[in-house]
Amino acid sequence: MTPLWSRGAFFYQVFPDRFFRSGPPGLPTPTGPFEPWEAPPSLRGFKGGTLWGVADKLPYLADLGVEALYLNPVFTSTANHRYHTVDYFQVDPVLGGNPALRHLLERAHSLGIRVILDGVFNHSGRGFFAFQHLLENGEKSPYRDWYRVHGFPLNAYGGAPNYEAWWGNPELPKFNHQNPQVRAYLLEVAEHWVRFGIDGWRLDVPNEIGDLEFWRAFRRRVKMANPEAYLVGEIWEEAQEWLQGDIFDATMNYPLARALLGFAGGEDLDRNLAAQSGLGPLEPLQALAFSHRLERLFGLYREEVVQSQLNLLTSHDTPRLLALLRGHRARARLALSLLFLLPGSPMVYYGEEIGMEGGHDPENRAGMVWEEGRWDRDLWERVRRMARLRKEFPELRTAPYTRVYAVDGHLAFARGRLLLVANATPEPFPQDLPLHGLWP
Amino acid sequence: MTPLWSRGAFFYQVFPDRFFRSGPPGLPTPTGPFEPWEAPPSLRGFKGGTLWGVADKLPYLADLGVEALYLNPVFTSTANHRYHTVDYFQVDPVLGGNPALRHLLERAHSLGIRVILDGVFNHSGRGFFAFQHLLENGEKSPYRDWYRVHGFPLNAYGGAPNYEAWWGNPELPKFNHQNPQVRAYLLEVAEHWVRFGIDGWRLDVPNEIGDLEFWRAFRRRVKMANPEAYLVGEIWEEAQEWLQGDIFDATMNYPLARALLGFAGGEDLDRNLAAQSGLGPLEPLQALAFSHRLERLFGLYREEVVQSQLNLLTSHDTPRLLALLRGHRARARLALSLLFLLPGSPMVYYGEEIGMEGGHDPENRAGMVWEEGRWDRDLWERVRRMARLRKEFPELRTAPYTRVYAVDGHLAFARGRLLLVANATPEPFPQDLPLHGLWP
Repeated sequence: MTPLWSRGAFFYQVFPDRFFRSGPPGLPTPTGPFEPWEAPPSLRGFKGGTLWGVADKLPYLADLGVEALYLNPVFTSTANHRYHTVDYFQVDPVLGGNPALRHLLERAHSLGIRVILDGVFNHSGRGFFAFQHLLENGEKSPYRDWYRVHGFPLNAYGGAPNYEAWWGNPELPKFNHQNPQVRAYLLEVAEHWVRFGIDGWRLDVPNEIGDLEFWRAFRRRVKMANPEAYLVGEIWEEAQEWLQGDIFDATMNYPLARALLGFAGGEDLDRNLAAQSGLGPLEPLQALAFSHRLERLFGLYREEVVQSQLNLLTSHDTPRLLALLRGHRARARLALSLLFLLPGSPMVYYGEEIGMEGGHDPENRAGMVWEEGRWDRDLWERVRRMARLRKEFPELRTAPYTRVYAVDGHLAFARGRLLLVANATPEPFPQDLPLHGLWP
Repeated sequence: MTPLWSRGAFFYQVFPDRFFRSGPPGLPTPTGPFEPWEAPPSLRGFKGGTLWGVADKLPYLADLGVEALYLNPVFTSTANHRYHTVDYFQVDPVLGGNPALRHLLERAHSLGIRVILDGVFNHSGRGFFAFQHLLENGEKSPYRDWYRVHGFPLNAYGGAPNYEAWWGNPELPKFNHQNPQVRAYLLEVAEHWVRFGIDGWRLDVPNEIGDLEFWRAFRRRVKMANPEAYLVGEIWEEAQEWLQGDIFDATMNYPLARALLGFAGGEDLDRNLAAQSGLGPLEPLQALAFSHRLERLFGLYREEVVQSQLNLLTSHDTPRLLALLRGHRARARLALSLLFLLPGSPMVYYGEEIGMEGGHDPENRAGMVWEEGRWDRDLWERVRRMARLRKEFPELRTAPYTRVYAVDGHLAFARGRLLLVANATPEPFPQDLPLHGLWP
């Protein structure tokens, strides 16, 4: 069973280094040294956002209608995105450490907002203690079977790595998941943070591990600690085998993103920009083709899964929405509206709701803009209104998608007693829709 | 004030990787992969001793008369000696992690045995998160001022390091103690473990930090958490400036070791072996010269300091006693007896009491021998008897040293109402001693 709370919940993705910087309540804001908040972000730079800061901005998120946060990795790391894990049991001191996460969880939960963390279990950073152990002791290390090493000494800081690494990147040595000690360690991490109070895990590159049994054990361990924990895998394609009920509750719904961008973006899509990201080749979609894509996607999984899928338009791994739409704000409003009107759990990437721009990493990871004068207020209002609509009409969370009309750029669909109408063109929508049989 | 408990207490030094391997109570012993316990130790090998194992052997230590343990470093590290710190807030998982230290402290305290840890605050290991951060992000890292870097990128894994390091060893980057963040971090570590329940710190190479103010702040922080915490510095020479009451309670008394070895070892001393260690050039001492050395040492410090000095013959940093004495067991008994009969806190290096042999590192760090058939029972009995004598006669902890007779290899001295007689020669001791005026 997917958790009830996650079905249709409004998620908001926070990239912790870039959201808001503040210190513990009553104490000064950390000073770094950090890059200036407003400066263009860089691949290796830090802006010093903290989890204290995320907690301080919960009122903003609650007002927007947010029901759950997905945080990019928060554990101690050598990277600003923190996918280079150094310590799986410690929140990064730059983010405020474990006390800051504790504080954020308490504050979020008191507002009814859930929090899921990013779990990076395929590889560690080079700075992870077991890798450093191996690096310094070679085959004498008791950790010698924690990675897949092709020869000693390790060649980790120059030239090609002589160990398996994520996409051959020496910074990210891949764990040997066949080693029972490694499995035990990673599953302990999974359970530890659920017991600490998080509401679930977003799992990084789970398909790279290539062992579904690891993930089945992962699910059992997490659900034993909290049956209501939500597990969402970063799978960029259709994911039937992952969503049978024994592995994940959901995946990051990039296939839906591609369809939404194709329909809402139409001829204004920056297809080159998209093609250089994990989104891959996008194509403009007319309403009928779009609806066929949707119908296929919604048909792949059980209903509780469809309702739990993490629907999104963009993330830290793609260009920002406005960049993909070449700055067409009306198209952005349409895309975001549809995101909230389709079955599944809509997720907004921080700043998307106020029209932040930026292409590939690092541009898509700028410091969140808090100066309201620089916001796209229409877009922000739209997201806020859509979030309220979902609370007002439970059908938007539970009812299936039914196509009503799909011609050119005009789409109408029903969700229970609701009729939704989307117009991706400048032309007016036809007034007569074939509604017979839709309602009793 | 030096802590009352530490004055004259019998310390026992444990090198945690090499003392005893066991798992948590009722759970299996960890299996490694480790080197065989009985195999000659190697510079990079691990034998897998644990703090669970040290706790299991507390009855042995209590029976021997031990009152305090000094543990070589226990925090997560890439080295078997664990001076390459990777995480100052975690006991090494190979040792059993924080739960094993908690268990050891509880068990030891219930037997009246104190425990001090080894604090390595001059440098970290390369695997320490702030150094890894600097390594991967260069000057964009918020940790850029945590070390003394001469240029980016860091050259840490090949060739000469472009940062300050302990004796130029790239594995041990030296902290920048002038950075307030670094000071705050290290002092937090100091306080954290005292609050966790340890009874004091042995401080590694404190003179390398070259800033007495750091150590004064360290003392204030520790004594605020526990006024009875014992602070002993690794200073190999006379240490007047460190022992004025505002820094350490004691130092590791290597000057006393040199004198003891010179007198007890006499012409059998392996002076070449000693000269290649931190002991430096040793010379055979007749009783009078020995006594003069003692009188000088005891005259350097206030009486409470003399009583607290950590007197030792050998440590993990020197060849073992029997190696220095070329296997002369009677001389070893004499040296160990005198160690217990002089003012100060005698410390025995694990295995010294049973006659373990071995020269320089790694030979001096073999797996502890638990098979009694391989012990030097006479030596073990002697240490046990001396420890009991100290409990029976409090003068051995409190009374000053008074020379009574010192001719050739014959020494007699008084400690309060006790007369102690040491014969470092095969010739019988003269029967008449000039005792007039010694007692009322």
